[in-house]
Formats: sequence, C-alpha cells, structure tokens
Amino acid sequence: MACGTATGPQSGRYLRATVAYDGTDMAGFQLQAGQRTVQQVLEDALATITQEAIRVIGAGRTDSGVHALGQVVAFGTDWRHSLSDLTRAWNAVLPVDVAVLSVQEAEGGFHPRFDARSRWYRYSIWNHAVRNPLVRRTAMWVCETLDLELMAEAASLLVGEHDFATFGSPPQGSNTVRQVFRATWTREGSMLYLDIEANAFLYRMARSIVGTVLQVGAGTLSVAQFGAQFQAADRNLAGPTAPAHGLCLMAVHY
Amino acid sequence: MACGTATGPQSGRYLRATVAYDGTDMAGFQLQAGQRTVQQVLEDALATITQEAIRVIGAGRTDSGVHALGQVVAFGTDWRHSLSDLTRAWNAVLPVDVAVLSVQEAEGGFHPRFDARSRWYRYSIWNHAVRNPLVRRTAMWVCETLDLELMAEAASLLVGEHDFATFGSPPQGSNTVRQVFRATWTREGSMLYLDIEANAFLYRMARSIVGTVLQVGAGTLSVAQFGAQFQAADRNLAGPTAPAHGLCLMAVHY
Repeated sequence: MACGTATGPQSGRYLRATVAYDGTDMAGFQLQAGQRTVQQVLEDALATITQEAIRVIGAGRTDSGVHALGQVVAFGTDWRHSLSDLTRAWNAVLPVDVAVLSVQEAEGGFHPRFDARSRWYRYSIWNHAVRNPLVRRTAMWVCETLDLELMAEAASLLVGEHDFATFGSPPQGSNTVRQVFRATWTREGSMLYLDIEANAFLYRMARSIVGTVLQVGAGTLSVAQFGAQFQAADRNLAGPTAPAHGLCLMAVHY
Repeated sequence: MACGTATGPQSGRYLRATVAYDGTDMAGFQLQAGQRTVQQVLEDALATITQEAIRVIGAGRTDSGVHALGQVVAFGTDWRHSLSDLTRAWNAVLPVDVAVLSVQEAEGGFHPRFDARSRWYRYSIWNHAVRNPLVRRTAMWVCETLDLELMAEAASLLVGEHDFATFGSPPQGSNTVRQVFRATWTREGSMLYLDIEANAFLYRMARSIVGTVLQVGAGTLSVAQFGAQFQAADRNLAGPTAPAHGLCLMAVHY
C-alpha cells in the first residue's frame, strides 16, 4: 500500500468502490498525461470532496472506449464521514458518464487487480441489416447474418485453462495461459451478447476473441479452423479485433 | 396527397419507411424553423440523394428528446432506383442518430398518421440508488424503491376505451377519448419497462401516465386514488410528466 502513493495520506481508512462508466469519451481507465481517463476523473472528484490527493487503483485497465458496470477500485483516505455520505458526495461531483455504485471498507492488504478471482466481460452486437442509433455507443453493428450456434460452439472451445497467445499479448514478464470459466452467446431480438469470464485477460483478448468468432458466425472460418488457430497459440492467426465500444466490464469477483 | 407539398413533385412513386432515431439531440419529430428535427434531417437527406424537395409525413409527432425504433413516414418521389438502393443511400447520408430500417411501396392513399390502428410506446426506468451512465440517454432514473405490483395494478385500469383527459391535452377540435389495448410493466434487473399501446395518444399522455403511476409505485398515491383521478378526467389531477428521454416509439400498426 505504501508504493505508488507518494502524494496521498494513506494512514486513515482503506476503501473499495464499484464504479460504472460510459467509456465513449474516455481514453481508457488508466492515467495518461493530458487525457481524460476514468482514473483521473475519479481522483479529481475525490480531491474536490476530501481536499486530499488520492490515488485510486483499478481492477482492470479497460481500453479507450470500453465501458464498465462493475469496475472495482481501492484507495486510502483520511476523510471521516460515513460511506453513504461519501457515495453521495462523490456521485454529485462526478460527471454524467461516471457513477459510483457502492463504497465499502476494504481489508488493509486488498488489491483490486491482484486479488481478483475472475473478471466478467460482456460484448454486445447489433445484428441487423441497418444500424441502430439507440445502441450505437454500446454495441458493435454487424449487418451480415450470423450463425449463433456455430459461434457458441467456437466459444465453448475457450473454456478451461489454455494458452491464449492467439488472442492477446501478455503484460511484461507474464505468460499467456489464462483460465476461462464461461463463454456463452445469447440472443435477444437483434442483439447478440457474448458473456465471457476468466481469471484474467490478456491485452485485447476479449475483443480479439469476438473478432475471430465473428468470422465463424459469418461462415468464413470453420469451427475446426478456429480451434486450430486457437491451439497454435500464434497472435498472427487471430481475426480482426472487434471495436472497443461493444465491450463492457460487468463485474470483478474476489 | 396534393396538400402541403408545394415544393415536391409527388407524381412518381409513393413510399413508406420505418425510421429509428436517438431523440437526445433532436427538437422532436416535426419541422420547426431553426431547429434540428427528425423530419428536417430525413428531408435534407432525401434532397441530397434525389435532388428533389421532398416532404415526409410522420405517424407520430414525438416530442423533443423522445426516441423511436419504429416511427413510420411516407413521401412521394420521382427517384427511379430500387428500394434497397434508396435505403442504402439514405442511411449513408443520414447522421449517426437517425437510421431508416426499411422502405416499401405505399398505397396511394396511405397516411401514416390517420391510417394507424395503434401506436406502441415503451417507457424505460433505471430503478437503482445510483444513476447508470450507460442508460442515461434512454431511461429515467428513479432512486426510490418502487412497488411494481401496485404499478401494474394501476396501469391495468387504463386498458379499454376511456376519457384520458387527466393525462393529456387533445389536438385542436378532437376529444380526449382513446382506446388503450395494453399497459404492462416488466422488470429486468434494475430496469423497469412500461409497454403501452393505444389507438392514439393525447399530447404528453404516455409521460403523464408514467409520472402518475410512479406516485403509486412510490407509495404516495393509492391505486384507488389513481383510479379516481383517472375517472375524474381532469388534467389538473395528473402527477408530474415523466422526462422525455425515457420514452421510445416502438412500432406503429396499420
């Protein structure tokens, strides 16, 4: 907890919060000089309320344009008021595209990223001949007819502990083996959803999986070819990366 | 068909189209000088494609901020290409917040407003202690706990042919009797939906119903009181009008 918190007094309380955001106008979660990021917006709002320079740590470094309904962050503060007062004040100061759903006391050693047991992402697709203005910020538009059964079959191959090198790059010094707990497609009218939960994700892994499974759905890649590309563990074999705006971090489990 | 079409040659084909839009940045459907309206945007795009000054007629004059997934419009044109070419060209020219879902040939006497048998509107509510950034443009936020059973009971009183004067103003020279075919509430997680279908709606009727039924759901109005206010047919007895951005015109039936 002492590391990376040069500016904030971390001696008081240690808290965790569940955060939702519309990633459309965000350059991702993580701080970047001169960019509007979720971390920056959360920290600026906390500074306004507490008059402290507080560093927040997030569970997942969502990319530019990716949304969240269940991002988890942790931070230390000396602010003395109740958690419900903090939640109310924080939401009052935050802009319309970020909201804090809940705030709790955290164990002293809690780390939102390293302690996470799993992350659940949902990818949304508007599958219709014509684009839908009402979901244009939260769903990828695919106009081709898609075979959802084949897509479900391909996705089912991902479940279990595998080398996911085909679908993403590892953080420095890490390997590419990850454990996927579920990967299921559902349809509601013209909307398709992929729900995928894993112990952790490689960089761009969820969107790379979606882009490649879409080739299966469109009939340009067989399930067997998909399986072979996956098993080859070669990043060059993935299909195109699906756009960021269809992806949403739904929950992080501890 | 000759009326109100001083500028456009209406001698050729007569077409109808189903249109979807995000009403957030629209001053409603109908033409208004100096305002960005759906009708204006549709007509401007048709003019770009056909080089004709075309007047479109809509089924429902949705208010400023109200959305649509199934608005119906009709218009005449001399443009000679196929309907699929027109759909593609129109969508290519339209801005991101308006889309044409389909275009068909229409009967010569077809009038989208006068010939409609029913309109189906959906009102969406995010019912949670904290606002949701991802649905802020398409759902009203209600933080109080709501009793959905009582709301369903109140809504069921609306079904049938009744005087709806409590919930809206009539167009000039018209009465306030309307026929409601269904009015049902459903819940999906923290989202609540009212689906209401009627032969026609008075000005602000759907939103006035929602605002008053919400008083029932919050426990400040009993179902019996709601019924009495409805029966009194007095505009002064309605609750507050629910905000426009929760409302969406889902379909028009002929």
